[in-house]
Amino acid sequence: MPRGAEKRQPKYQRIAAALKDGIASGLYGPGDRLPGESDLMATYGVARMTARQAFAALQAEGLVEPRKGAGVFVREFKVGIRRRGIQRLAVEVWSAGGSIWAADGTGHDPVVEFLGVAEEPAPGAVAQALGVPVGAAVLVRRRKFLLDGRPVMLATSYLDAALAAGTPIAEPDTGPGGVYARLAELGRKPVRFREEVRSRMPAPEEAKALALGPGTPVVLVCRTAFDADRRVVEVNEMALDSAAYVLEYEFDAV
Amino acid sequence: MPRGAEKRQPKYQRIAAALKDGIASGLYGPGDRLPGESDLMATYGVARMTARQAFAALQAEGLVEPRKGAGVFVREFKVGIRRRGIQRLAVEVWSAGGSIWAADGTGHDPVVEFLGVAEEPAPGAVAQALGVPVGAAVLVRRRKFLLDGRPVMLATSYLDAALAAGTPIAEPDTGPGGVYARLAELGRKPVRFREEVRSRMPAPEEAKALALGPGTPVVLVCRTAFDADRRVVEVNEMALDSAAYVLEYEFDAV
Repeated sequence: MPRGAEKRQPKYQRIAAALKDGIASGLYGPGDRLPGESDLMATYGVARMTARQAFAALQAEGLVEPRKGAGVFVREFKVGIRRRGIQRLAVEVWSAGGSIWAADGTGHDPVVEFLGVAEEPAPGAVAQALGVPVGAAVLVRRRKFLLDGRPVMLATSYLDAALAAGTPIAEPDTGPGGVYARLAELGRKPVRFREEVRSRMPAPEEAKALALGPGTPVVLVCRTAFDADRRVVEVNEMALDSAAYVLEYEFDAV
Repeated sequence: MPRGAEKRQPKYQRIAAALKDGIASGLYGPGDRLPGESDLMATYGVARMTARQAFAALQAEGLVEPRKGAGVFVREFKVGIRRRGIQRLAVEVWSAGGSIWAADGTGHDPVVEFLGVAEEPAPGAVAQALGVPVGAAVLVRRRKFLLDGRPVMLATSYLDAALAAGTPIAEPDTGPGGVYARLAELGRKPVRFREEVRSRMPAPEEAKALALGPGTPVVLVCRTAFDADRRVVEVNEMALDSAAYVLEYEFDAV
C-alpha cells in the first residue's frame, strides 16, 4: 500500500478511489461487475466492513449499483439525451407541426404517458408568472416521457384557464406542433422562452416515478413562454433524470 | 393518525412528509430548528429510531442539516446566484473590460481564489474539443469562486498552449475583460458559446472544496468558446454548488 500523504485517507476511501480509477480508465466498463467483497479483502488486506464502505461510497456518487446476489456493477447510462435547449424551441419546428424532441438527437420521439389534464387553483409562483390572481383557475397538464421504455422526464404545464379551457390545449392530444402551435392559433404565439435550470436530490415520489437509482439527482427545468407582448402564456415545470440528460445551450456572443 | 392508503407508507416517511409540508408552507423557515426526536416520539407515538429515520430522509434530500448538540435545522440558502447564461457572455460586457459576473444579480463580484496555471498534456476529451493531438501541451487555469466567503464554483479552463503560453492568459490575473478580451487581442475573439449542463453527486474532493452539505449535487457546466472561424479557443469545465445556483437561459424562438 502507498505510504505518506495517502495514509491520512481512510482505507475505504483509498479503495473507492482505486475502483473509480478503474471505471474512469475503462478497466471496468458500463455494466461490468466490480471485484467482490472477498476480492477487495484479499487485495487490500481489509475487513469485510471496509470493502462494503468502499462500495457504499461509490454507490452514493451514483457510479455503481448493487444487484441482489450478483455483486456490484458499474452503472449503465443507456439513454443519452442531448437536449438542445434553444434549437428545439425554434418556431419553424412546432409551427410546421413537428416535435420539439426531434432536435434532441435520440433518433426517435419519446413515448408520452399522459397523466391528466385538470383545472386547478393556481399555486402562488405559477399565478405570479402567469399574471393571474393566486387561486385563479389554471389548466394543468401532467405528462411523463419515456425513452426506450425508461422514464426520463416528468412535466407539468400550467396555462391560464381563461385562455386554454375548451380549446385543444385541454385535450390529452393537443395535435401537431403541440401546445405552442395551438397558442399561435389563439393569437398568443410564443416568441421568447426562458429556461431556469436547477438541480437537487429527488423527493421520494420523483425517485419512484423516474425509477432513479441511488445517488441520482434530478435536473429541474422551469420554462416560461412569452408572447409578442411579453405576456406569459405557459409555465412548464420539468423534472429530468440527471443520468439520462445533458442540456445544451448554444448561442452567439451578441 | 390517518388511515387507509397512507397506512401502507412506512411511519418514518409519513413523519418526513409532514415535516416537509411544514417547510414548504413556511411553518419552518430557513434556519429554523425542527421539532426534536423526543417531540416526534410524543407527537406520533414512535420509537426514537423512527424519528431518526425521518430526519435522515430529509437530510438525504438536502432539506435539513443536523447541528451538533443543537438539533436539526432547515437548510439556509443564503447565496442565490441567478446565472444568466447568455446575457453574461455578451461581447459588450467583456470587450469593455467588465466582469461576466455583473449579470448574475448578486450585487457584487465573487472573490476568486487562484489555484494555479500550468502547461499540461491535454486530456482526451479536451484535446478533441480544442483540435490538438491528445497529450499536446494545453494551458490549464484552475480557480475557485467564493461569494460572501462561501465557495460556490470550481472552474478549470483549457486553452491551446501554442496560442496562450507567454501571453497574459498564462498570468494569474488576466486583466480587464479576462481571458476572452485577451483572446480577442490575439485575433481569436470568441463569437459563439456552447454550454453543456449536467448534474451528478459530487466526488469527495468536490464536496470538500465546495463545502457541500449532504444530499447536495453539483451542476456541471462545460463551456466551449468558438471564434469566427468556428475554431474552439477555450474549454471551461465548471462545477457549481447546486444549492447556490439557478442557471437561466433566455432566448427568442427564432
